Amino acid sequence: MLTVFEIPVRVYHEDTDGGGIVYYANYLKYMERARTEYLRSLGFEQDDLRQEHGCIFVVTHVDIEYRRPATFNDSLRVSCELLETRRASFRVRQNVQRSEAKQGIGQAEAGSEQGNLLTASTVSLACLNSETLVPQRIPRTLSTALADVAQVH
Amino acid sequence: MLTVFEIPVRVYHEDTDGGGIVYYANYLKYMERARTEYLRSLGFEQDDLRQEHGCIFVVTHVDIEYRRPATFNDSLRVSCELLETRRASFRVRQNVQRSEAKQGIGQAEAGSEQGNLLTASTVSLACLNSETLVPQRIPRTLSTALADVAQVH
Amino acid sequence: MLTVFEIPVRVYHEDTDGGGIVYYANYLKYMERARTEYLRSLGFEQDDLRQEHGCIFVVTHVDIEYRRPATFNDSLRVSCELLETRRASFRVRQNVQRSEAKQGIGQAEAGSEQGNLLTASTVSLACLNSETLVPQRIPRTLSTALADVAQVH
Amino acid sequence: MLTVFEIPVRVYHEDTDGGGIVYYANYLKYMERARTEYLRSLGFEQDDLRQEHGCIFVVTHVDIEYRRPATFNDSLRVSCELLETRRASFRVRQNVQRSEAKQGIGQAEAGSEQGNLLTASTVSLACLNSETLVPQRIPRTLSTALADVAQVH
Repeated sequence: MLTVFEIPVRVYHEDTDGGGIVYYANYLKYMERARTEYLRSLGFEQDDLRQEHGCIFVVTHVDIEYRRPATFNDSLRVSCELLETRRASFRVRQNVQRSEAKQGIGQAEAGSEQGNLLTASTVSLACLNSETLVPQRIPRTLSTALADVAQVH
Repeated sequence: MLTVFEIPVRVYHEDTDGGGIVYYANYLKYMERARTEYLRSLGFEQDDLRQEHGCIFVVTHVDIEYRRPATFNDSLRVSCELLETRRASFRVRQNVQRSEAKQGIGQAEAGSEQGNLLTASTVSLACLNSETLVPQRIPRTLSTALADVAQVH
Repeated sequence: MLTVFEIPVRVYHEDTDGGGIVYYANYLKYMERARTEYLRSLGFEQDDLRQEHGCIFVVTHVDIEYRRPATFNDSLRVSCELLETRRASFRVRQNVQRSEAKQGIGQAEAGSEQGNLLTASTVSLACLNSETLVPQRIPRTLSTALADVAQVH
Repeated sequence: MLTVFEIPVRVYHEDTDGGGIVYYANYLKYMERARTEYLRSLGFEQDDLRQEHGCIFVVTHVDIEYRRPATFNDSLRVSCELLETRRASFRVRQNVQRSEAKQGIGQAEAGSEQGNLLTASTVSLACLNSETLVPQRIPRTLSTALADVAQVH
């Protein structure tokens, strides 16, 4: 059975807002870190892709459900799972979960997977030419790697 | 005919990333500024709502489509339009548009409304108790004001 | 008497942290907005300077004293005052002040200039070649404009 | 010989600006992460300090010199070294260094400590009451731990 790709993320002061919880836009930062590490785990560095193939990836769509808030000092796991790959785009599922049981709020559910799911999202990305910002075919080495991943799932 | 509530936003260096375009999470910051000003335009300050009614608003869902990128120095308009209001939540449509015709990329479409639409989104918000983070009825003065807006539309 | 160049800045949720006050790094964002508007007020757009003269400005030194915290919804004034201009660099003084008297904390001093000063800083900037990141002479039109400002002070 | 406390930080898209380099305010985020981990390494969690002692730490002064820029994908080391501790405040030195030799720009110096130093700074912090924001004595367990560190140096 395949495990989903995940990175650990710690919540720092920079991430929280005056409500004492992680600011909603900042989950998208966590998710982008996970996508970068996901590509890295497949052997691809985005700065190399840009220099060698003149391509950058831009997000074209995000659907994100915020279920529970993360707070300062939380230890999170941020996932990246390939859902679909096309000629010039791909789509991933990304969840943010709390790693450890938290004291206090939500304590009853601590430990259950469901109780620790903070955000659930899908993200679509397009491959663009870095100069013209026009859609461009995903470099073959990367599209092959992504197709291999998709097949295994 | 009702005009949609909008605020102007200027793109600064803080908003862009290494790709030279506005980082995708930062549109959510712009949208939150517009929601804050929307509530203010209706006569409601979020710090007063918190002090007097013990309530905060948290985003529970975002669906955002990124159509075109904004770049440094762009002058944007960010909208907030009420779609639906419930007992303890409400939902808005928020678009980000470029205010002025841009030179160069996408020039042919400059001036057309369609060509200037950068992001299109819907955002759901829940009213929570600021201490317990449990859902709480929207304060009556605010729910009345939102209902009035919804009726006019 | 010359008035110092200032821009208004409103504090939004994105700016605050879990302590309920503006996160310390975010004052540097406000200051950069003020520098951008300062250059604009002198007739210079940074994207034009980059395209026409191949130069960008990078911050080389910041000394900032945090005296009082700004909180959500505060209305601020952020200044930019030229202190010194050189061949390939210049230095400015930038303060952040609260525009309006605040209720509650620090109320006794509300209204006094001193009581409303939140941060005091000096910032040094260097002109670099946008490709090589090597120091480069400030474009003459800009250095002339800055010299004129410096002379008036 | 004592080694200085350090954490690793990877540069992601969220950190860079349109100039292709890390935005100047974001080094302060890295530095705050290092301070949080430094306190954690001494056995202190800031959320515990707040709950048990009603105290938070706020930055009162930063002096930061930006020597070289970090770029996307850089692997950094961010230090935190205690310089001075007082009744209700302490001061640290914090440097940001690049971990690995970079290809291209600055290549000649790669490997030398000096060549890899990106920012050098000192940061002063005050202990405040989390409710009143009035200065408050550093909790004794923490001040003792800091004094022990200071003595060793």
